[in-house]
Amino acid sequence: MRALVLDEELQFVEDYPTPTPPPGEALIRVRMAGLCNTDLELMRGYMRFRGVPGHEFVGVVERAPGAEVWEGRRVVGDINAACGVCATCRAGQHTHCPQRTTLGISGRDGAFAEYLTLPVANLYAVPEDLPDEVAVFTEPLAAACEILEQVHVHPTDRVIVLGDGKLGLLCAQVLALTGCDLTVIGRHAEKLDILARRGIATLCVARNATVAGLPRADVVVEATGHPDGYATARALVRPRGTLVLKSTYHDTLEANLTMAVVDEITLVGSRCGPLAAALRLQARGAVDVTPLVEACYPFDAILTAFAHAGRRGALKVLVDFNPPLLPAAES
Amino acid sequence: MRALVLDEELQFVEDYPTPTPPPGEALIRVRMAGLCNTDLELMRGYMRFRGVPGHEFVGVVERAPGAEVWEGRRVVGDINAACGVCATCRAGQHTHCPQRTTLGISGRDGAFAEYLTLPVANLYAVPEDLPDEVAVFTEPLAAACEILEQVHVHPTDRVIVLGDGKLGLLCAQVLALTGCDLTVIGRHAEKLDILARRGIATLCVARNATVAGLPRADVVVEATGHPDGYATARALVRPRGTLVLKSTYHDTLEANLTMAVVDEITLVGSRCGPLAAALRLQARGAVDVTPLVEACYPFDAILTAFAHAGRRGALKVLVDFNPPLLPAAES
Repeated sequence: MRALVLDEELQFVEDYPTPTPPPGEALIRVRMAGLCNTDLELMRGYMRFRGVPGHEFVGVVERAPGAEVWEGRRVVGDINAACGVCATCRAGQHTHCPQRTTLGISGRDGAFAEYLTLPVANLYAVPEDLPDEVAVFTEPLAAACEILEQVHVHPTDRVIVLGDGKLGLLCAQVLALTGCDLTVIGRHAEKLDILARRGIATLCVARNATVAGLPRADVVVEATGHPDGYATARALVRPRGTLVLKSTYHDTLEANLTMAVVDEITLVGSRCGPLAAALRLQARGAVDVTPLVEACYPFDAILTAFAHAGRRGALKVLVDFNPPLLPAAES
Repeated sequence: MRALVLDEELQFVEDYPTPTPPPGEALIRVRMAGLCNTDLELMRGYMRFRGVPGHEFVGVVERAPGAEVWEGRRVVGDINAACGVCATCRAGQHTHCPQRTTLGISGRDGAFAEYLTLPVANLYAVPEDLPDEVAVFTEPLAAACEILEQVHVHPTDRVIVLGDGKLGLLCAQVLALTGCDLTVIGRHAEKLDILARRGIATLCVARNATVAGLPRADVVVEATGHPDGYATARALVRPRGTLVLKSTYHDTLEANLTMAVVDEITLVGSRCGPLAAALRLQARGAVDVTPLVEACYPFDAILTAFAHAGRRGALKVLVDFNPPLLPAAES
């Protein structure tokens, strides 16, 4: 099959072996996949991953031995494949299973290939009227929902999302649904406008601008994707407030935590979230991901798609495995 | 001024004295008001209230001595007028101030009159593009938001709202925004359809049907408005789950709480909520209250409006203080 492979560098190959699903897993034909900052970080050495990257996808189950009811279904998938039997899994914390592999990130080939495999237990059927270009956002939208799974955000809370990238825009849309007093701080007026059109307050600041004068918030979500986002986020949290860390990157973060102790800040690391909840929000039309799509390339052109996703300030770049017959361009 | 007065019975009078705002309060000309089940319960003796009922309103500030910036503004208002200085108020719990009066419910004339007064501190400016017939729902929508203020509802929680009346429909819309796995149980297919059109799962049951076979939920919201809702709601909560009580009525509830102890159920009484959050949700278009409007009467016809609101299964009945020139009918 055709696949994008990360070894020393990214290579598009025509003859990568099509996977055979091990017991309990399904073979899925990928229909559409999304590029994430994590994919770019993998190229920089994050997780020391080698193989097929890609973890945001929507596909169709081609074969599911022993679970044939899934065959033909359009699905999205939880990217964490857990053992299911260890103490962590039994406690319901399967995304933290120490034996887990993670689709296209750690120990498991991912979605930038014509086929992938995932445990049947990880699959979620996509409602019929949800188009591929919406369903492909289920995984990152679930990561945004994870904030509300971990932190009780009250309707009266003052909340700041720092960062107007792809994840910041999704986190902001999900947090706005709580009714909280939300402000999103970013550097790109045109991205912040996506939120402003939904009634969300935004603040556009220059690269080295200070945010020292702003009133402090009960909850701050750091979603800049950069190590220097921490200090800014920290300065925006009130004493006894909560700082949610959503960014993952290859670089090391150096933070002075003593003042976080003095100010009794709660730091919450936040990663993958509940896919079923994300699908429900999409089915209810509670979030709108379509303005986040910056371009959609045919799978053949995925190296171009990666170059595009790497541009400063790029929003979501998708790859379509069944593109229309006309040559695709930036949408 | 014209006013509806509850004494032995409801009376529409032409010559009720126009109130004079005491220090710190504003005189508000009512533009539109909504009828609530609580208004019907007041007629049955709830709170032993005498005076002008009505607590759901949108109006314009006519005079605000010492706070003239508010004059001319279109506003909604927190109905709890607190002392502001007692220990409860200082702890930020003004809606529980033991000295409080409550608009149209306890110790303070309400909104079914051409003018009312409220402390300036209770007022919230209505965004310009929010029509009166939406803004008038701010108070009951805030009561729905109060659930999320009190209880951490997770995106992965299974939640049931029991009751498809006005408050049930608002609670359901707000809870759906968490992404939770929500089912609304009611008796009226046409009301449940309002939610189904928004992607919310519903279950229509006959009056004496049992719900014993349903899987139990993490959180159940009792919003039937009837004392017999408790037992049904209780049967739907899982052990260690949370039961939110939203109904208020004149009758006494007799509940066997021993089994709630055995099952370690958390009971949460829930009343008035954050108006600012409700306004934000309305401005963001996250909820749709318009399908809840069943009829809108001119203020002159408020006794007819009360009769209409008292019909079994009636949804929201509004009264318009500045109706269009054509005679209004059921909308």
